[in-house]
Amino acid sequence: MTETDQLTPPIPSDDEDYSLDAKNVSAILFAVETGNRDQLVDLLEDMHAADIADLLEQVNAYDRRRLIQLYDREFDGEILSELEESLREDVISVLRPETLAEAVRDMESDDVVDLVEDLDDAQQEAILEVLEDADRVAVEQALSYPEFSAGRLMQRETVWAPEHWTVGDAIDYMRNSEELPEQFYHVILVDPRMRPVANVTLGKIMGSPREAPLKNLSEEMFQVIPVAQDEGEVAYAFNQYHLISAPVVDEDERLIGVITIDDAMAVLDEEHEEDILRLAGVGDESSLSDSVMETTKQRIPWLAVNLVTSILASLVIAQFEETLAQFVALAILMPIVASMGGNAGTQSLTVAVRALATKDLTSSNLWRVVSREALVGLFNGIVFAIVMGIVGVIWFGTPMLGVVIAVAMVINLVVAGLAGTGIPVLLEKIGVDPALASGAFVTTVTDVVGFFAFLALAGAVLL
Amino acid sequence: MTETDQLTPPIPSDDEDYSLDAKNVSAILFAVETGNRDQLVDLLEDMHAADIADLLEQVNAYDRRRLIQLYDREFDGEILSELEESLREDVISVLRPETLAEAVRDMESDDVVDLVEDLDDAQQEAILEVLEDADRVAVEQALSYPEFSAGRLMQRETVWAPEHWTVGDAIDYMRNSEELPEQFYHVILVDPRMRPVANVTLGKIMGSPREAPLKNLSEEMFQVIPVAQDEGEVAYAFNQYHLISAPVVDEDERLIGVITIDDAMAVLDEEHEEDILRLAGVGDESSLSDSVMETTKQRIPWLAVNLVTSILASLVIAQFEETLAQFVALAILMPIVASMGGNAGTQSLTVAVRALATKDLTSSNLWRVVSREALVGLFNGIVFAIVMGIVGVIWFGTPMLGVVIAVAMVINLVVAGLAGTGIPVLLEKIGVDPALASGAFVTTVTDVVGFFAFLALAGAVLL
Repeated sequence: MTETDQLTPPIPSDDEDYSLDAKNVSAILFAVETGNRDQLVDLLEDMHAADIADLLEQVNAYDRRRLIQLYDREFDGEILSELEESLREDVISVLRPETLAEAVRDMESDDVVDLVEDLDDAQQEAILEVLEDADRVAVEQALSYPEFSAGRLMQRETVWAPEHWTVGDAIDYMRNSEELPEQFYHVILVDPRMRPVANVTLGKIMGSPREAPLKNLSEEMFQVIPVAQDEGEVAYAFNQYHLISAPVVDEDERLIGVITIDDAMAVLDEEHEEDILRLAGVGDESSLSDSVMETTKQRIPWLAVNLVTSILASLVIAQFEETLAQFVALAILMPIVASMGGNAGTQSLTVAVRALATKDLTSSNLWRVVSREALVGLFNGIVFAIVMGIVGVIWFGTPMLGVVIAVAMVINLVVAGLAGTGIPVLLEKIGVDPALASGAFVTTVTDVVGFFAFLALAGAVLL
Repeated sequence: MTETDQLTPPIPSDDEDYSLDAKNVSAILFAVETGNRDQLVDLLEDMHAADIADLLEQVNAYDRRRLIQLYDREFDGEILSELEESLREDVISVLRPETLAEAVRDMESDDVVDLVEDLDDAQQEAILEVLEDADRVAVEQALSYPEFSAGRLMQRETVWAPEHWTVGDAIDYMRNSEELPEQFYHVILVDPRMRPVANVTLGKIMGSPREAPLKNLSEEMFQVIPVAQDEGEVAYAFNQYHLISAPVVDEDERLIGVITIDDAMAVLDEEHEEDILRLAGVGDESSLSDSVMETTKQRIPWLAVNLVTSILASLVIAQFEETLAQFVALAILMPIVASMGGNAGTQSLTVAVRALATKDLTSSNLWRVVSREALVGLFNGIVFAIVMGIVGVIWFGTPMLGVVIAVAMVINLVVAGLAGTGIPVLLEKIGVDPALASGAFVTTVTDVVGFFAFLALAGAVLL
């Protein structure tokens, strides 16, 4: 903002929705098609980098390339940061080297880390080369921490003060600093060995007299993050303890950086996305802009697992070929028992996976949750057993068939409750992400048990 | 923290995990069992309110009540805020009125709003009564805004300044304020009609000379939230634009409050939880501490829908009773085609639901995404058609059976891709949450199409 600018209140959007405006998108694509650079720059000028990134994700690969080439030297680093990972390599390869260099030089070092960490070596090299020496060292240092660790997430620039300082000391120091971080919310108090001991919010500093000692203003909640901590744990801590920023320490407990809530929020969002996609058996790196071939390949593993498990279920059915041959009604009804079990199992499983992720399912309440799910299965089994028993009798006029389907339903729903809770817990125990693998196991169990219970009972009773 | 306290660095936990410590939980439960109040208070003293709330959620109802009664007057309002909604009424009914009154009086007004909005009228009344007049008015005003709106989320205390003020003006004003909000990160600049025009971070104010005009320090990104905006949209805006705090305005665009990122992060987390539970057909208000009966009831609607759809599928199978009677192998193989379709449909559906939630699936790319999913279905259909065709031939020695299952597989996987994307988009268009209802429709389609394609083809070809 230049000094002569007159500030005017922004106009809140009418539709209270932050989706990209379809008319705007059409106008942009028209400018790209007609090669009208001025109009394109004009249209993109007021858009936030995150929205421009969304736009690039939504248009097709051809328009995306044309747009980037036309926009060219206006393309800034923030758009790169906001782009989803799967598109970054593609976009970077389209940018002219000079444009890329300029874009990257404008970025904060933690954003550069986030940008380069997933690039191939050649592209990573090219970007590191254009950085100034100090920035390059910072980025390389960050890359030396394990992926998905607090070290990758933190910014190195911290604002700290000795614990004996007063408000006046802190304000004078900050006013004389050459360069304060773009965003910071606390002054971190450190002991003589540089170990963080407390946080003081800027608001408290603002509201206190110059002579007040900082340590009397320190916040009640104070959480220190070890540099090797997994980013998922970091996000959990921010959400659980309502942290705004937290100091990061090395193995000697010395201050080496700070993580702010906006980065933790982004991680929380990514972790959720991962869970939801994994639960559905979609590769967790999948995105809407992936090509048909990439998507086809991503989806194959889960479908292959499902093929094996459904063949397994068919093998169970095959054991009852004679029963089926004599009583075709069984073939008509058998998918119902399996399907109800699969759904009930998925319900239990989702609750368990989510509770494990939020650390709400622990050894203190495991037994209670498992028995609750089994009882819920029992009661819902009874409810739907009665309904289906009646449907079976009316439809086929064979009372014993109604009894068979009812009993099989109860058995399968109890098993669904047990498997839906037990399997994710076991997977978590052996170190496998329960979101990733539980679904296949649980539906295999409910399919096999559903078909077996129904057909075996029918064979025993009806023939 | 008292003035004489010596600050010491906190010890980062060894296991880098924020779960409740099982040993600690046992000790707490032992103290509760033996009625040892001092020991209980001692054990809970260093625990964060959010962790105490988690503990209350994890223990059984009997222990929970005993713990609350024993802890009694140490029980503070923050624990109530952190408790999940389904337990609040229960806990409040156990607290002595005096304890409750004291707990509530210590809370910030926006936390009180969050606490009381879901309580029954009698409990709400009881809590409002103990508040001081000014707080009660604030809470009642907040409750007058629609549920899940920005108005419910915001805090009314704002720190603002006329746009012509300097850094020095702002610091002097804040230092002389009786009571600044507990947490604030920006000074909001307003025009003479109280309309917010810019945000200035406290960090910028700290780092600038006293005579610098505030408006020269204003942040590039500035977003104003209308008071009636849905909280999900608010959370989206914070995440998309990396906001830390945003002013809330009334219909006349005048400043009436502020929302901070920690509240937006909590909403984002809740929205995710809702999506993931709805996708699995679990009531989105469900929680681990619900009783068996509550849980049984919550799960019934989705299971009932599933029962109806699977009976529908069975009716399709029943049309082919004669075919099945003559060729029992069909009964053995038919669940495979339906199951593969159901899984492929769930994959497409989850990607679509998630993309709708993040506003990445729009009219600009709808057609491309739908055709991509159909093509992915086609290609994966071909892959698994070949596999299953071979399995079918080997297993039953009938080449035509292999062809039938292969063709049915291709048809069902293409339909799965189309339905998995099309149905959520249609539901969103007519204003139904796609996370809630898509699953039932998509699996109905893939079951019906799967059984029909397989059995009809078999009937035509094999008999």
